[in-house]
Amino acid sequence: MGGWCGIANPFSAEVVARAGFDWVCVDQQHGLVGPDGLPSMLQAIELAGVPSLVRVPWNEPAAIMRAFDAGATGVVVPLVNSRADAERAVRAGRYPPAGDRSWGPTRPAQSVSGYTPALGNERSLMVVQIETAEAVDALDDILDVDGVDAVFVGPSDLALSYGLAPTLTPRLPEHTEAILQVRDAARRRGVPAGIYCGDPAMARRWRSEGFVVLAIASDVVLLRAAATDAATRSREGAAP
Amino acid sequence: MGGWCGIANPFSAEVVARAGFDWVCVDQQHGLVGPDGLPSMLQAIELAGVPSLVRVPWNEPAAIMRAFDAGATGVVVPLVNSRADAERAVRAGRYPPAGDRSWGPTRPAQSVSGYTPALGNERSLMVVQIETAEAVDALDDILDVDGVDAVFVGPSDLALSYGLAPTLTPRLPEHTEAILQVRDAARRRGVPAGIYCGDPAMARRWRSEGFVVLAIASDVVLLRAAATDAATRSREGAAP
Amino acid sequence: MGGWCGIANPFSAEVVARAGFDWVCVDQQHGLVGPDGLPSMLQAIELAGVPSLVRVPWNEPAAIMRAFDAGATGVVVPLVNSRADAERAVRAGRYPPAGDRSWGPTRPAQSVSGYTPALGNERSLMVVQIETAEAVDALDDILDVDGVDAVFVGPSDLALSYGLAPTLTPRLPEHTEAILQVRDAARRRGVPAGIYCGDPAMARRWRSEGFVVLAIASDVVLLRAAATDAATRSREGAAP
Amino acid sequence: MGGWCGIANPFSAEVVARAGFDWVCVDQQHGLVGPDGLPSMLQAIELAGVPSLVRVPWNEPAAIMRAFDAGATGVVVPLVNSRADAERAVRAGRYPPAGDRSWGPTRPAQSVSGYTPALGNERSLMVVQIETAEAVDALDDILDVDGVDAVFVGPSDLALSYGLAPTLTPRLPEHTEAILQVRDAARRRGVPAGIYCGDPAMARRWRSEGFVVLAIASDVVLLRAAATDAATRSREGAAP
Amino acid sequence: MGGWCGIANPFSAEVVARAGFDWVCVDQQHGLVGPDGLPSMLQAIELAGVPSLVRVPWNEPAAIMRAFDAGATGVVVPLVNSRADAERAVRAGRYPPAGDRSWGPTRPAQSVSGYTPALGNERSLMVVQIETAEAVDALDDILDVDGVDAVFVGPSDLALSYGLAPTLTPRLPEHTEAILQVRDAARRRGVPAGIYCGDPAMARRWRSEGFVVLAIASDVVLLRAAATDAATRSREGAAP
Amino acid sequence: MGGWCGIANPFSAEVVARAGFDWVCVDQQHGLVGPDGLPSMLQAIELAGVPSLVRVPWNEPAAIMRAFDAGATGVVVPLVNSRADAERAVRAGRYPPAGDRSWGPTRPAQSVSGYTPALGNERSLMVVQIETAEAVDALDDILDVDGVDAVFVGPSDLALSYGLAPTLTPRLPEHTEAILQVRDAARRRGVPAGIYCGDPAMARRWRSEGFVVLAIASDVVLLRAAATDAATRSREGAAP
Repeated sequence: MGGWCGIANPFSAEVVARAGFDWVCVDQQHGLVGPDGLPSMLQAIELAGVPSLVRVPWNEPAAIMRAFDAGATGVVVPLVNSRADAERAVRAGRYPPAGDRSWGPTRPAQSVSGYTPALGNERSLMVVQIETAEAVDALDDILDVDGVDAVFVGPSDLALSYGLAPTLTPRLPEHTEAILQVRDAARRRGVPAGIYCGDPAMARRWRSEGFVVLAIASDVVLLRAAATDAATRSREGAAP
Repeated sequence: MGGWCGIANPFSAEVVARAGFDWVCVDQQHGLVGPDGLPSMLQAIELAGVPSLVRVPWNEPAAIMRAFDAGATGVVVPLVNSRADAERAVRAGRYPPAGDRSWGPTRPAQSVSGYTPALGNERSLMVVQIETAEAVDALDDILDVDGVDAVFVGPSDLALSYGLAPTLTPRLPEHTEAILQVRDAARRRGVPAGIYCGDPAMARRWRSEGFVVLAIASDVVLLRAAATDAATRSREGAAP
Repeated sequence: MGGWCGIANPFSAEVVARAGFDWVCVDQQHGLVGPDGLPSMLQAIELAGVPSLVRVPWNEPAAIMRAFDAGATGVVVPLVNSRADAERAVRAGRYPPAGDRSWGPTRPAQSVSGYTPALGNERSLMVVQIETAEAVDALDDILDVDGVDAVFVGPSDLALSYGLAPTLTPRLPEHTEAILQVRDAARRRGVPAGIYCGDPAMARRWRSEGFVVLAIASDVVLLRAAATDAATRSREGAAP
Repeated sequence: MGGWCGIANPFSAEVVARAGFDWVCVDQQHGLVGPDGLPSMLQAIELAGVPSLVRVPWNEPAAIMRAFDAGATGVVVPLVNSRADAERAVRAGRYPPAGDRSWGPTRPAQSVSGYTPALGNERSLMVVQIETAEAVDALDDILDVDGVDAVFVGPSDLALSYGLAPTLTPRLPEHTEAILQVRDAARRRGVPAGIYCGDPAMARRWRSEGFVVLAIASDVVLLRAAATDAATRSREGAAP
Repeated sequence: MGGWCGIANPFSAEVVARAGFDWVCVDQQHGLVGPDGLPSMLQAIELAGVPSLVRVPWNEPAAIMRAFDAGATGVVVPLVNSRADAERAVRAGRYPPAGDRSWGPTRPAQSVSGYTPALGNERSLMVVQIETAEAVDALDDILDVDGVDAVFVGPSDLALSYGLAPTLTPRLPEHTEAILQVRDAARRRGVPAGIYCGDPAMARRWRSEGFVVLAIASDVVLLRAAATDAATRSREGAAP
Repeated sequence: MGGWCGIANPFSAEVVARAGFDWVCVDQQHGLVGPDGLPSMLQAIELAGVPSLVRVPWNEPAAIMRAFDAGATGVVVPLVNSRADAERAVRAGRYPPAGDRSWGPTRPAQSVSGYTPALGNERSLMVVQIETAEAVDALDDILDVDGVDAVFVGPSDLALSYGLAPTLTPRLPEHTEAILQVRDAARRRGVPAGIYCGDPAMARRWRSEGFVVLAIASDVVLLRAAATDAATRSREGAAP
C-alpha cells in the first residue's frame, strides 16, 4: 500500500508518509516536483520510517541516478514498452558491471557507513511501468530483464493506449483484461505486480486480484476530495 | 465558509481554493508558511477567484502590512486581548489618518489602476481573534474599536485560557458559554462573528448558533485524515 | 503580442502578464527558470488572465508533458529542424492516439471539471521554433506535421546558422529572406507564423510583414534597459 | 543614485545592480523579499561591485542585525519618528558599547579576514527614514543621535501623514516644504539627506535641491512601466 | 555536545546531524536561516535521530512558538538579560496556565498521537542565553524563573559587553570569570550550564570546568576551515 | 586546485569559493543541486573571484547550454566514452558553426557588454570526464575532438568499470595504470589532465604525477569529516 506525492513540499510529504502506508512515492512525472525539491521530500518520507519511491519524469539515466543519489529506496520508470526500455532503466539503477550507474551515493552514504556498490544495487529497487498495449505485448521480454524488481500498471495510460477513455476504475473488458495480463505474466516470473488504484475500493479490488504493490491515491487527489467534501458538507442545511 | 492553508505551497493553496470555499486563509501562525512563501500562495488563491486572508504570526504591524502589500484581502490577528491590541491591529491595516499603514501596495497596485489609500482601507479586512478569557472580558472594548471588521474565535486557545483541554468540539459548558458570549457581543454591534470549526459538523453547529465566518479545517488536517483513511480502508479485508 | 519571462519569480511574471500582452511565455531554455519554479509562474500568468506558453529547454517529451501538466496553454519547442523533430514535439503534446502524452493533467484538471484527452489536445498549443538553415530547408516537411499549431522564428539562432552575427534586428538580406521564407511557407499552409522581436519597433515591422505571433522582449532585457536608462537619465546634468 | 529591489530573485537583483547605480537597496518592507531570500540577493549586488542596502520591514533589532550579518552595507529603517526610534535603530547596528548588536558577522567575516567590532561599526551604515509629520517635528532630536549616517525621505508616507494623497511628485506646498525641512536640518548637521524619487526627472529635481542619496525607482515599477510601454508601442498602427 | 547550522539547507543539516553530536541547533539569529527554510531542516535533524534546537533571532513570542510548532525540541533565546526577559521567553514556550503559547502543534502532532499541552510543555526545552554583564548581574533572578531548562553562555557577546574583544577562547581573567559565574549560579540551582565553544579544545576545557551543554562549532566555520585547510594542504610542495 | 559543491546553497558555495581554490565546481550529477538552485550558486562563486565549473547530470545539450547561459565558466561532462560523446558535448558548448549552442547568453551578457559568439566560445571551457575502460580505450579519439579543453578522470567510476571497488585512493596497479594512461594521452596532445582527488594527499600525489586540474573534495565530504572530527575530538577524555 503506498501513498503518492505530487505537491512539492517536505511537510505534506511527511504527513502522507505518517498516514499508515507501506511506502510513499514522489511523483516527478505528473506531480509538480522538480529536481530541486526532491531531496528534502525524500528526507521527510524517510523520517516517517517508510521506504521512498520516486517516479522519474522519463526513462532517463540521469533522472534515475539522481533519485537514488538523493536517497530514494526505489524508482518507478514510466512508459517502459520494450526489453530495451527495461534494460535502459535497470542499467541506470545498477553499478557496473550489472549496469552503468555512476558512483556518488551522496545521501545514502550519509546513513550507511561502508556503502558499497553491492549494497547500493541491493537497496535500489527498480519498478517499471506497464502502461501501453505495446508494453503488454512485450511483457515477457520486459520481465526477462534481470533487475526488474516489480511491474506497475498505469491504468489510465493503458486505457488511452487501447483507444479507451482514461480511468482508474476500469469497466470495459479490454481494459481489465490487459491489466490482468500484466498480473499473470508477473506471477509466472515471480515478480510482484502493482497498480495505481486511485481509491481504497479499487485497492481492495486489485489486491483481491493478486496485485501486491498498490498505490492508493495522490496527495493532490486526496486533498482536493477532502477539501471539496468539507466545503460541501459544511454548507448542508444552509440557506442558499 | 473558509479553507485554511498551513502547507507552504502555491499549488496546494490553489487546490484548497478551488474546493468551494468562500475564502481561504494562509496561516503564518501555526502553519509552516513563512514570509518568503506567502506571496505566491496569495496569487494562487486569487487565481481561484476567492478572497484570501492571512493569519499573521503575531499582532505586529510589519507582518500585517506585508500581508496586505502582498495582496491579502484580509488579515486575521491572533490573541487580541484588549482594546489596545485591537487598536494596534487596526492601525497597522489602515492608511493615515485612520492608522499607520505605510504606503507601498506592491501587489494590489498591479491589478487595480488608481489604487488609493481610501480604496486600500476599504479593501483590507481586519479580523481579530478572541481566544482568551481576558479577551472575552474585554469584548465590548475590543468591539468599540472602529475598523474591527469581524471577530473570530479560536476555540482551542480559549479552552486553554479557561483551564480546559484544547478542543475544537466543546463539550464543557464554560467553553461553549465563552464562545457564545463572543457571538452575542458581536451581534449587539452588528459585527460578524466567526470561529475555527475543525470539521463540517462543527461548522453546521456554529452556523446554526449564528456564526457567519466559519473556518472549516486546515489542509494539514484534511490531508492527514484523508491519507490515513485511504490507507486504512485500503487494508480492509487484507490478511494481517 | 507576447511577453517573455526569464526571471524565476511568480511576482515578476504577474507584473509582465498584467502589462497588456496577449500571452506570456516562460523561458526554460535561455531564461533562468527551472522545473521547480515553473508551476507558480504559470499560476501568476493565469491570474492575470492571459494564456501562458512555456519554452522548454529542449525537444524532450518529459519537458513538454510537464509544462502542460503544470498548466501551460502552449509549449514552444526550440530547434525543430526536421519533420522528425516536429513529430516528436507534437506527439509529446497530444494524448493517444494522436501522440504519446501520458495521462495526468495535474493542474489543468483543477480548474476544468470533466477534463478529457480531447479537451487536453484541443487546449494544448504546439509552437515549433524555426531557427536553423536546416529547418528552413525542411519547412514544408515540418508544416506537414499535423498538430503544429504555429511556427516561431528565432532570429538570432537563424543568423548564426547562416554564418551571420546573431541579431534581432536583421539588416542582411540573407537573414531577412530566411525569415520571410518561414512566413511564406506558413501562410501557404494557413499556419500562424511568429517571431521573437526584441523591441516594439521590430514587432511593428514583423507585424507589417505578416507575422502574427510576436514576442516583444524578455523581462531581463526590459528591466536591464529600464534600469540603465533610469540610472543614466537620473545623472543628467550632474557634476561628474 | 540607487536602485531598488522588490522582486525576490538574485538574478533580477544582479541586473539592477549592473545598471549603473551607485548602490542598490533590497526592500523587505514593501517589496516581496523575505528573510530567506535576502542573502543571495545581497551576494548578487555585491557581485556587481556596488554597496547593498536593506530596507528592513520595521525598526526591529533582529531584522537590522540579520541584514548586516547577511552582508548588507547599510540598513534603511522605516518610520523613525523620534529620538528614541533613532536610538533604537542605531543601537541595533552597532556593537557594544556604542550599541547592542550581537556578535556573529556571518557573511562579512567570509570576505574580510580579521573582522572586528570596530570595522563592523565603521562599515555598517544606518539610514533612517523621515516619513511622518511627527518625524519632521523631531528632526533635530533624531539628527542628534550619534550614528545616524543619513536621513531618507519617504515622500508618499510623508504626504499621507500631512493628510495629503500619497505621491512621489509633490505639487502641494506643504508637501514640498516638509521635504525641504528634512534637507535643511540634515544640512545643518552635515548629514547626507536622501529621498525616494520614483523617476529620473524627480531625481534630477531633488538633486538640484541638495539631496544626495537618491533612490530612483524599484524594479517592480521599472519592469511594469517597461513592459506596458513595450506592449503598447508594439500595438501601434495595428488594426484594433 | 552539539552541532550548529547556519547554512539554510536540509541536506547540510542532515550531514551535521549524523556526525555524532548529541543535538543540533539551527541558528536563525546569526545563521542565514529564515522562517521558510526552518521546517525542512528540523525534519532533517530529526531524521538523524538527534534532538533539534532553534536559536531564534530575538526574544519574540512568535519566533519561539513557530520554532516549537515546526518541531523543535528546544529553543535557544538570545540576550536574556533580566528576569522579565526570561519570563517572556518561558511564557512563549509553555501552554497556559504556565505560559501563553498558542495551541497549534502542527509538526509535533504528526508524530505523536494524543499530543496534549502537558506533553508539549514537557517536550519543549527553553534555553536562555547569558551574554551580557547585565545578565550576569541578574543571574539569580533569571534562574529563579520556573521553566528555564538551561543557561547558555555566548562568550563573544559577553566579552563585548565587558568592553573586551569578542572571542571564543577567553584569555582575559574578567572574561573567564564572568563565564564561570554563570556556571556557578547554574550549579547552585541544579540547572545545566552550556556554552558556545568554537572548537573541540575549548569544548574539552569547558567540559572540565563543569559545562554540560557544549556547542562545538557551526557548519559555516567547519566548512570554511576544512575547505581552506584542504586548499592549503593540496598546494604544499607545489611550485609557486 | 578546485573546490566542489554538492550542497544546494549559495552561501556554502561562497564559503567554499573563498577558501583559496583556483576554481569551484557545482555538481549537478551526484550533488543535490538542481536547475533552479544553480544560478545563484554561480553568482556566489563569481563573487569570490574564482571561475565556476558545472558538472552537468548527463551529456545532454540542454543541460550544458543552460549551465553556460547561467554563467558557468566551464562545464564538466560525465561519462564521455567515445568520440561521438565528446563531439556531442563540445557541440553543445559552442556556437555555430563550431557547434550547435543556441544563442541566449542570459547571465554572461549582463557583465560583458558586446558579448559575441566568438567571445562565448572562447570563455566556455569544455572538460570531459574519462571514467570508463571504454573511454580509456577511446582516449585518442576523444582527444582528437577539437574543443575538448581538458580531460578529467573520475577514479571511482573508472575503478568500477575495471571491475574494482570504487575508490579515490587507488592501490591496485590496473587502476593506477588506467589513470596514468589518461595523463599520458593528454600530455601527448598538450591537453591538461585533471582528476577528482578526494583529499589533499591525493592531490599532491596526482600533481606530482603531472595532473594539473585537481578537484580536492566536495563540501559534503569536507563538512562531514570536519563535523565528525569535531564531535569526536570534543568528547576526548569525557566519561563514557
